[in-house]
Amino acid sequence: MCAAACLTAVPASAQFQKPEDAVKYRKAAFTVMAAHFGRVGAMAQGKAPWDAQAAAANMAVVMSVHQLPFTAFGAGTDSGDTRALPEVWSKAADFKAAADKMADAMGKLDAAVKTGSFDNTKAAFGPVGGSCKACHDDFRKK
Amino acid sequence: MCAAACLTAVPASAQFQKPEDAVKYRKAAFTVMAAHFGRVGAMAQGKAPWDAQAAAANMAVVMSVHQLPFTAFGAGTDSGDTRALPEVWSKAADFKAAADKMADAMGKLDAAVKTGSFDNTKAAFGPVGGSCKACHDDFRKK
Repeated sequence: MCAAACLTAVPASAQFQKPEDAVKYRKAAFTVMAAHFGRVGAMAQGKAPWDAQAAAANMAVVMSVHQLPFTAFGAGTDSGDTRALPEVWSKAADFKAAADKMADAMGKLDAAVKTGSFDNTKAAFGPVGGSCKACHDDFRKK
Repeated sequence: MCAAACLTAVPASAQFQKPEDAVKYRKAAFTVMAAHFGRVGAMAQGKAPWDAQAAAANMAVVMSVHQLPFTAFGAGTDSGDTRALPEVWSKAADFKAAADKMADAMGKLDAAVKTGSFDNTKAAFGPVGGSCKACHDDFRKK
């Protein structure tokens, strides 16, 4: 997907009028991602029936939005209605590495889902879940 | 984009555990859509410099998410933290028609943006803005 990649090349400061707009936006993008990722996860974990077409449709949404939140952690967006820890900014390279790790694992999950195979999807799901948890542990308030 | 079209074929009741999850999700999807649509609109209205590549990247996100909110207005999602008016459910056919009108206008705007032409984009922007306003006027609390 070019969309997210192109957008991440634009400074966040150019994209949001006010810091609270950035906070609202990144939370919204995470919410959309989580809803669709969760539906794939429910299937991968055997909590919902495997439906290759639905999994692919949900992953298409995930792939369109999963990089968007990271365009909205610019300078000055560390306060207000956010659970982001100061480490997002003080350890910016580590935060970016964690986001990249998620993106890499998500790309592999998308490829797995596109094979139509439950087993492939199940195998690729774990690393994504792990990347979510690792980033939440280090960069998000409990 | 198959994603949104495929998803709208699934009953909303099957997609959200709790009504408040549906409300949170649809607002989040609207927030993401509005942020990216707003960037295209700023260019179309001459408030930001025309950048065909940025417009296309933003429209790609819009096209991925603009139908998603309408998967989340199922029965029982009319209360809580929502500005949706009762008419969303009591005049469901009208609400669907309003959503379809937006989708149609948005598709035309996407096609216009893809030509790379500011003039085409400017011409196609108005009908989308009009469809947003019409739906908000009829179906959203002030």
